[in-house]
Amino acid sequence: MAAGINRQILLKSRPDGAPGLDNFELVHSPVPEPADGEVLMRTRYLSLDPYMRGRMSAAKSYAKPVKVGEPMVGGTVGEIVASRNAKFAVGDIVLGYGGWQDYVLSGGVGARKLDPAAAPITTALGVLGMPGMTAYAGLLEIGRPKPGETVAVAAASGAVGSVVGQIAKIKGCRAVGIAGGPDKCRYVVQELGFDACVDHRAPDFARQLGAACPAGIDVYFENVGGAVQQAVWPLLNDFARIPVCGLIAQYSAATPMPGPDMFSVLRKRLTLRGFIVSDFAAKQDDFLREAGDWVRSGRLKYREDVVEGLENAPAAFLGLLQGKNFGKLLVKVA
Amino acid sequence: MAAGINRQILLKSRPDGAPGLDNFELVHSPVPEPADGEVLMRTRYLSLDPYMRGRMSAAKSYAKPVKVGEPMVGGTVGEIVASRNAKFAVGDIVLGYGGWQDYVLSGGVGARKLDPAAAPITTALGVLGMPGMTAYAGLLEIGRPKPGETVAVAAASGAVGSVVGQIAKIKGCRAVGIAGGPDKCRYVVQELGFDACVDHRAPDFARQLGAACPAGIDVYFENVGGAVQQAVWPLLNDFARIPVCGLIAQYSAATPMPGPDMFSVLRKRLTLRGFIVSDFAAKQDDFLREAGDWVRSGRLKYREDVVEGLENAPAAFLGLLQGKNFGKLLVKVA
Repeated sequence: MAAGINRQILLKSRPDGAPGLDNFELVHSPVPEPADGEVLMRTRYLSLDPYMRGRMSAAKSYAKPVKVGEPMVGGTVGEIVASRNAKFAVGDIVLGYGGWQDYVLSGGVGARKLDPAAAPITTALGVLGMPGMTAYAGLLEIGRPKPGETVAVAAASGAVGSVVGQIAKIKGCRAVGIAGGPDKCRYVVQELGFDACVDHRAPDFARQLGAACPAGIDVYFENVGGAVQQAVWPLLNDFARIPVCGLIAQYSAATPMPGPDMFSVLRKRLTLRGFIVSDFAAKQDDFLREAGDWVRSGRLKYREDVVEGLENAPAAFLGLLQGKNFGKLLVKVA
Repeated sequence: MAAGINRQILLKSRPDGAPGLDNFELVHSPVPEPADGEVLMRTRYLSLDPYMRGRMSAAKSYAKPVKVGEPMVGGTVGEIVASRNAKFAVGDIVLGYGGWQDYVLSGGVGARKLDPAAAPITTALGVLGMPGMTAYAGLLEIGRPKPGETVAVAAASGAVGSVVGQIAKIKGCRAVGIAGGPDKCRYVVQELGFDACVDHRAPDFARQLGAACPAGIDVYFENVGGAVQQAVWPLLNDFARIPVCGLIAQYSAATPMPGPDMFSVLRKRLTLRGFIVSDFAAKQDDFLREAGDWVRSGRLKYREDVVEGLENAPAAFLGLLQGKNFGKLLVKVA
């Protein structure tokens, strides 16, 4: 491996409220050399996901924050360009957690070899990766939808929401999406096959949502919080289940938003449960088998929003937090 | 059955905020005569429970509100004084839902004969009745406490909370009570055997609660909401379970109180689940067998706060909402 330049995007400072470009810094470092047992991965695709907002803050959470001055973390699909680990050969395509940089060293733990013939390699970051697994586990293990029930999901054209609604359909439910803007809503209904999709930017959003859920809501897959949550709450049926996966509308709020009405929790016998995908690691094999079949048979569709160039990752990530992406957001790094 | 007077306490008007004595009215009616298939029960004991506050309001809930001008509802232990139903004989002691009145007719459905030799008949309204079953089902089915975990419960000297903590101890947990005043706290620790009890009226309540839960809280049995909930929330451990049984501190709040922080639900992977006792009707036999054994062996203790005279039910009920009772609140009617 010849010496070269490793571009890295570091967390330069922690955001106070909504992050900006000035919270990131692009630096050039030498490409590191693998030690015995290590591999050097060259990043081909970097996944950008909402949870990364949490890593930018120092607040206590399920994962350690990124330290100021260190590269931003993130899932990546990369190519092995140097190997001193017998399990990996140069040219192997692997799923890893390489972060916002061109190259990363890995001991191989947690890296999974991908078969480019089985599915496009980018799907390992989306529909067949962490976002897809998040949808699968949260919907099936917490939401437990029954045929005929209504499943509502926000960010319905996104990496997680799109899978939630499509699995709901596969399970015989009515799937109602919530998305930002008519293009996304059209896509969710016409391409993904949801029964309805409501634009949360519409002035009469709450009324439209009610009309789209004539039998109420039995499962609300929570990705966003905020105003969408407030519109959903009165529509929840008795014994509704709410997998709490994300709160993207609240991540940068200056003051905490009030939580949901506890009287509804009591009177309607609601179940709310927060989760992260790793809580359901035991379901990973089931997911890969089932979702792989669904993708291959065309029952589970996906859309990717690919940004070219590592240097554009910060702007793309800020757009993600504002709902500007349309489909699973990826950065093509090399 | 000679003709007589049936005193009834009616809902006179719906409260706006905290109820008062003027929301109730005592009237005299003739004692009704049983038709074929019916029995006439004379109320011996009336149970007063926090859920009755909900029945006074017109808000949609899991049960219909009491209509203005009708008797307040409530669980009762009564004696059959006239029977035209082959399943019940005069003199039988039965658990029923007779309401705030001296006499009630019943078709017998839902009435359960009690054996006064097996346990004091009042226990059918408390430790071996709806409150005990509420504690049992909510703690075991939703809280799912594991040995060594910390279970916190508010209203710890009350009919439900006292059973929650004692079952937590039986299951090998650390039981931490929250109660109003030093007398109740002393009782909870010294008589009921909780590991600790904190007075929520203490100025440094939150600090004391933290000190009583050095390993955090794994199960919070929610009876009260409000300020107690706010003090509990930061102490919850990852994967904590919160059976939501009641919100007595919020029942008469003029404006809705903000719900719990959703970020904690997400980051700590909390489970909140509202329930009412009838959701777990299938566990009733298990409860009666297990709790009956625990009561007979002295492992499950109880305390009753008995008010004499039906006419005193409204004042006693208002006191219950303010935490003035000490133990399961009952009215001795006859």
